[in-house]
Amino acid sequence: MDVLEIIKGRRSVRSFSDKAIPKESLYAILEAGIWAPSGSNIQPWEFILVDDPGLIKKVKLVSPGLYGLPKALIVLCFNKKRSEKAGRIGPSLAVMDISMAAQNMMLMAYSLGIGSCPIASFNKIALKELLSIPEEVEPVLMVSLGYPSRWPEPPHRRPIEEVVHLNVYGQNLRR
Amino acid sequence: MDVLEIIKGRRSVRSFSDKAIPKESLYAILEAGIWAPSGSNIQPWEFILVDDPGLIKKVKLVSPGLYGLPKALIVLCFNKKRSEKAGRIGPSLAVMDISMAAQNMMLMAYSLGIGSCPIASFNKIALKELLSIPEEVEPVLMVSLGYPSRWPEPPHRRPIEEVVHLNVYGQNLRR
Repeated sequence: MDVLEIIKGRRSVRSFSDKAIPKESLYAILEAGIWAPSGSNIQPWEFILVDDPGLIKKVKLVSPGLYGLPKALIVLCFNKKRSEKAGRIGPSLAVMDISMAAQNMMLMAYSLGIGSCPIASFNKIALKELLSIPEEVEPVLMVSLGYPSRWPEPPHRRPIEEVVHLNVYGQNLRR
Repeated sequence: MDVLEIIKGRRSVRSFSDKAIPKESLYAILEAGIWAPSGSNIQPWEFILVDDPGLIKKVKLVSPGLYGLPKALIVLCFNKKRSEKAGRIGPSLAVMDISMAAQNMMLMAYSLGIGSCPIASFNKIALKELLSIPEEVEPVLMVSLGYPSRWPEPPHRRPIEEVVHLNVYGQNLRR
């Protein structure tokens, strides 16, 4: 598959089979994350891989955005002290860095036949308590992982012609 | 190249050659962007492709984070009215959606031999004026594009063992 096929084929998966994810696959997904770009190369991220089934169930209880029962979760956090190296804008840059890392992880997962879903809706305080996340570390996103029970159909996309402007806002793209 | 090679090979490029980017390549890069996930599939993004050399130079004057002279810029914005469909958290979700779209674009560019760099440091007010961006549209990131005059060496990465925790914060990953 070329990268556009992977980018277009990736789906947000919310229903998982019982098949276990090989450790090497989890490792490749984590590795994809650390190769995201980051503002000033600060790499403010800390990733918590949750593969304990009991803990996943507890996280699910405090995460309205988490559907299905994934085999693993990656909680993508940033370290506030590390992000502050970029000054006042550090935390907002860190959110972007982490989102790019999440996208890398989800593309990597898909290329291995593994489904994923980005999750922003969870109770941060409860999650921090469950995973012993210290005060200076801020969870931003979770990525759920598992083999899909089925691949969903692609949702509707706004076409490029609607989304893209040429040179100035409101000017259509020439094709 | 498999996707991990693309993810690991992508570099932030800040020095570009004079070679023009084929239209089909720009189109593929834009297409990669619209296939990012978005919260509630709202797709809050609007992308402005800037390929006018004079306009690129003007944007550069108000963008301290923009290095080199790229052949094109994509300004990734979100539409506030659209993002508000996701409620109060809409704008912060939109920043994540846009960051994922930017990562898709940069991976696509790299797979075509095109260099890119994400840029968050620019004067929003001046940029909005230059590109006639309306009040309700918020620029978040720019991606510069061009064939690199040379590919930079990969910057240091914090190793997985330092970045990843297993199940609870502070517990090492078993390999």
